[in-house]
Amino acid sequence: MYVVIVANAPGLNLAPYHQLLTTAERLIAADGGGTALFTHGYTPHLLIGDLDSITPEALAAYQAQGVAIERHRPDKDETDLELALLAAVNLGASRIDIIGALGGRWDQSLANVTLLGMAELRGRRVRLLDHPQQIWLVTDVSVIPGAVGDTVSLLPFGGDAHGITTEGLAYPLHNGTLYYDRARGVSNVITATPAQVQVRDGALLIVWTARAH
Amino acid sequence: MYVVIVANAPGLNLAPYHQLLTTAERLIAADGGGTALFTHGYTPHLLIGDLDSITPEALAAYQAQGVAIERHRPDKDETDLELALLAAVNLGASRIDIIGALGGRWDQSLANVTLLGMAELRGRRVRLLDHPQQIWLVTDVSVIPGAVGDTVSLLPFGGDAHGITTEGLAYPLHNGTLYYDRARGVSNVITATPAQVQVRDGALLIVWTARAH
Repeated sequence: MYVVIVANAPGLNLAPYHQLLTTAERLIAADGGGTALFTHGYTPHLLIGDLDSITPEALAAYQAQGVAIERHRPDKDETDLELALLAAVNLGASRIDIIGALGGRWDQSLANVTLLGMAELRGRRVRLLDHPQQIWLVTDVSVIPGAVGDTVSLLPFGGDAHGITTEGLAYPLHNGTLYYDRARGVSNVITATPAQVQVRDGALLIVWTARAH
Repeated sequence: MYVVIVANAPGLNLAPYHQLLTTAERLIAADGGGTALFTHGYTPHLLIGDLDSITPEALAAYQAQGVAIERHRPDKDETDLELALLAAVNLGASRIDIIGALGGRWDQSLANVTLLGMAELRGRRVRLLDHPQQIWLVTDVSVIPGAVGDTVSLLPFGGDAHGITTEGLAYPLHNGTLYYDRARGVSNVITATPAQVQVRDGALLIVWTARAH
């Protein structure tokens, strides 16, 4: 099942995601993400969160339309995005795209990136989208769906990453190590497709910037 | 020595940082950060990087003014901010504020945050500033210079963090653990000052959002 989650980044423009939003089998709004969906004329299957940031107008409309609403206490332990991810997992999602989780407060954006490491997401294809960038986590091997000339950065996740081997990148690694607190993997470039990254020990964030072609 | 580094975030407004920029004992421009300084009428002591993003106009002006310029090869291993941080360390900086390192590309922003863990920075007070937010790394104890009502998030850095004890926060921890891939430490609130965070094993990013008072 393919699930799209829309979170609460300020000033979120959904236009670049129209195809994803219309092909999603389930659409989940994380609190204020419901406002962006409402403004753009989309109706989620589920609205989840403490509902302190969705506009009253969008909330009332979804209530009138019978949208499933899961309201949590404001002092919950989980962030709204974490709740939405767990809901997607409960639906049996194999692929999850997350829109609107980057931008706005740095604590929220940084925490949203680390949620990619949630144990419940293991084995599912999960991407954070902020057009034209995509971020995902690799613990084994990943093909980068980009074109020659695209920028790809490899960022160690939660510690150093070892046994990294790349294909199709300008600055190659062969069983190499990237250290968490350095920035050696920033701004690599695709030179041949399909580009690929493999990691033996640890995990890497892949940040792919799609160029206009 | 107090050093301020200005990096290359797009659309950087230096107005909130005027006092810092004028009290810095050394001002370092990381490549395109020099353009923002030039536009706002500041002159750095050092311009460093591969100089692929500073405008020709700003570069020419700094050359004419005799600003120290350290040009690195474009295929260097280090990012421009990493080079600037190492230069600050070589100057003997005890306090470093970094402006313009957050925003723009996500790979660069995320890598810039992890640079806070550079071994060379241990024992120095280093802050990433993106008004009204500040981010710094704690491996022992840190006082949060905020007021009652301010939002403070505690984000594990490079793995789980253990033995966390807080003072003056609405959701307290007493010898607690925060897990890297969860978001339990997001959106705490200062309830008494001075608020303080202590960590025994591991490291925490503190993200403090100063409210308008």
